[in-house]
Amino acid sequence: MSIVAAVEFAEKNKARFVEELKALLRIPSISTDPERVGDVRRAAEFVAAELTRIGMENVRLIETTSASHANGHPLVYADWLHAAPKADGAAAATVLCYGHYDVQPAEPLDEWKSPPFEPTERDGNIYARGAVDDKGQMWMHVKALESLFAADGGRLPVNVRVIVEGEEEVGGEGIAAFVREHGDVLKADVALVSDTEMFAADLPTLCVGLRGMIYTEIEARGARTDLHSGMYGGAAPNPFVALAQVIAKLKDVDGKILIPGFYDKVATPTDAELKAWKALPFDEEHYRETEVGSVALTGEAGYSVLERTWARPTVDVHGMPGGFIGAGAKTVIPAKAVAKVSMRLVPDMTPAESFAQYKAYVESLTPKGIVLEVRMIHSGDPIVVSTDNPYVKAATDAMHEVFGKETVFVRGGGSIPIVGDFVRELKIPTVMMGFGLPDDNLHAPNEKFHLANFYRGIESIVRFLSGVGA
Amino acid sequence: MSIVAAVEFAEKNKARFVEELKALLRIPSISTDPERVGDVRRAAEFVAAELTRIGMENVRLIETTSASHANGHPLVYADWLHAAPKADGAAAATVLCYGHYDVQPAEPLDEWKSPPFEPTERDGNIYARGAVDDKGQMWMHVKALESLFAADGGRLPVNVRVIVEGEEEVGGEGIAAFVREHGDVLKADVALVSDTEMFAADLPTLCVGLRGMIYTEIEARGARTDLHSGMYGGAAPNPFVALAQVIAKLKDVDGKILIPGFYDKVATPTDAELKAWKALPFDEEHYRETEVGSVALTGEAGYSVLERTWARPTVDVHGMPGGFIGAGAKTVIPAKAVAKVSMRLVPDMTPAESFAQYKAYVESLTPKGIVLEVRMIHSGDPIVVSTDNPYVKAATDAMHEVFGKETVFVRGGGSIPIVGDFVRELKIPTVMMGFGLPDDNLHAPNEKFHLANFYRGIESIVRFLSGVGA
Repeated sequence: MSIVAAVEFAEKNKARFVEELKALLRIPSISTDPERVGDVRRAAEFVAAELTRIGMENVRLIETTSASHANGHPLVYADWLHAAPKADGAAAATVLCYGHYDVQPAEPLDEWKSPPFEPTERDGNIYARGAVDDKGQMWMHVKALESLFAADGGRLPVNVRVIVEGEEEVGGEGIAAFVREHGDVLKADVALVSDTEMFAADLPTLCVGLRGMIYTEIEARGARTDLHSGMYGGAAPNPFVALAQVIAKLKDVDGKILIPGFYDKVATPTDAELKAWKALPFDEEHYRETEVGSVALTGEAGYSVLERTWARPTVDVHGMPGGFIGAGAKTVIPAKAVAKVSMRLVPDMTPAESFAQYKAYVESLTPKGIVLEVRMIHSGDPIVVSTDNPYVKAATDAMHEVFGKETVFVRGGGSIPIVGDFVRELKIPTVMMGFGLPDDNLHAPNEKFHLANFYRGIESIVRFLSGVGA
Repeated sequence: MSIVAAVEFAEKNKARFVEELKALLRIPSISTDPERVGDVRRAAEFVAAELTRIGMENVRLIETTSASHANGHPLVYADWLHAAPKADGAAAATVLCYGHYDVQPAEPLDEWKSPPFEPTERDGNIYARGAVDDKGQMWMHVKALESLFAADGGRLPVNVRVIVEGEEEVGGEGIAAFVREHGDVLKADVALVSDTEMFAADLPTLCVGLRGMIYTEIEARGARTDLHSGMYGGAAPNPFVALAQVIAKLKDVDGKILIPGFYDKVATPTDAELKAWKALPFDEEHYRETEVGSVALTGEAGYSVLERTWARPTVDVHGMPGGFIGAGAKTVIPAKAVAKVSMRLVPDMTPAESFAQYKAYVESLTPKGIVLEVRMIHSGDPIVVSTDNPYVKAATDAMHEVFGKETVFVRGGGSIPIVGDFVRELKIPTVMMGFGLPDDNLHAPNEKFHLANFYRGIESIVRFLSGVGA
């Protein structure tokens, strides 16, 4: 029976799978860094070569130049479309496996216990930038496909297309344009995305909702050139003070966003969903202590942590470039400063409307002597995916086999814009079956992937693809 | 007559003087940069070698290690104490010539039209980091001394001590400790400091008051490690948002500082001083347009620009290190962020009391979930110097000879802490005779020194030293 054979193959080859993943993790494919363009492409070629080796067809890099997007990082495409009809005689289904091979920057480098691009095993985990987000999870797809090919003489139980992008961490504009303009190339019945996490160790989890986002910059310009704060302090506008005044007015001290109209389209989760969230094994004090580690949690009064991170919009500031940031003292009034500000959006907010509300509000706050410019860097739609389809059942059945437990349905606070594109452009649902853990340090120093979950993920995907094909 | 001979010597040698200055400006003696320790020492040695060559005695580098200050940059000391008694038979006076050989960092480098450490002449100016602050002005002292030695067979008209420091731009802790602990070495009747500017081109100026300062850092810590803003946004405290909330409460929108008690000790300038300031050739709109270049000036309502920059305290933010400041987007909630905040102080405020008020107020503003640490980086006393002494008369007479105009008395907005140390520890007045211009881009890209003022400065100092010795 090919499922058993595939699972056995994966079990026997798991050490090799990890070594291959390490080779991929050594490539610093930081998509936001213009100096890493070559490394990003090298990661794409690495993935394409492996897809070819395991038996996928039509493997190619697709350049993402389009009307709206020039000189991006390439997509990796592959397919295998020769699956036998289903047991009931219906045509074989097609699964679109999505992942991304690009990673976040690794700064601050001095906080990594082992270097971010020298993958290191410690305590049953593999530590590296991209370990869980998303190289490790994308590699589960590739290794599940390899195991299925190996178990059945070079055949798969279902039609499969693979699309792996290199711009997820910078907004995914290239794949969005490709899906919009060449959706037929990706024609499928369901998408499989493994870029989320499990609610807790050993608790199989499907993510059925994601926040969207708008990532912006506010640039404040004051004097024409940098000025000495002794000579000009008291007369020249200070861009950092101006940005502070603006930022302080984005939220009140209770975490309520003050942008007019921002909450108008916010949909309340269903009673059933809220009830299910309350039943999840989650202790806010434990979360504060072990995951966040701050003296107190923050956020909108009157909402639980899960509601605040899954179903409420937020504002965060990520960095404020400009001025003097070295050691010691420099008495400069900088000519300009920037605040990198993002907002998480929830259904039924839209990036376009939310950005317009934000921009108008920020501009209305312009401090004296300052010129503000508000720029959108990238955005993603919030989404809620349906749980009422056979693919979700195939996923929960697969994970029940592997974990021996019922699957919990959660939402994610982060944004995976491509899931919205699949809904809108391809009209297909997405199964978000992720195997990260809450303490995997996504986007932070010491990112890791729990190796047991890497193996369980491969087995779950083997069983899911077999289930969809059955 | 030796004054005429000295002035002639300076005139004949001015091209060489500029070439020597260029050699000094090529040394990137950035005192705040730990990687420039060797360059800073090289600048000290350059100055010491020239003082020896022109005929100064007891030339030496003095290490600034003391109980309160370890491993600083060296002082350069020299003296010549063989002056003949005055015309009236009184013992010769001793002038303490002060300057500094260290410079500010040159960032942002891409805004310099010529590289900061490749001095370049354009339009009658010499462009380089340190051109006017203070290498160029300190070099005027050295060249005035050389001219006097040359004109009078290796003698000076007055006793002279020279002290040149290498930590002015980082707070001058080393020289402060030296003056406090070894004041006898610097025993003098008056100090001459050329580290200020003229009120306008061709308008001889003495600076008779300086603001003090406290330069601080506020560190805000939230989560234990950097977190993903998608997953934790809405629950984890954001250090930048917290700092913005604090900074926004330091001043109201009319520029009034909100720190309780901060204005209590602020002394109002005398009516005579305010009247003299009103008579100065100063147009606020012209200043806004040509010097600041912002769409409007800012600062405390109800005070003129000169009052605001000379006689009122201020708050400025210089930079906010932390988080992600690269190009593009990184969705991080940083574990910590820092704001570099300084305050200018005026008589009769004291750094210790002002810092205590500020620290208590900032801590009282601590946002939820955040731990704040408020640190003093360095400080300087505000001072007002007396105009009622023969040295001020010698200075105004000297500049009248050179410029053909009466001297105006102004204050400076910046801090020269050593002047306070001279008053407090040595009990001597300071003549602040500076030859910078308001558009010399102090501490900013494209710093320059007007070469005509370099020459007029040398002549003014020749005449001043001769006048004090007469």
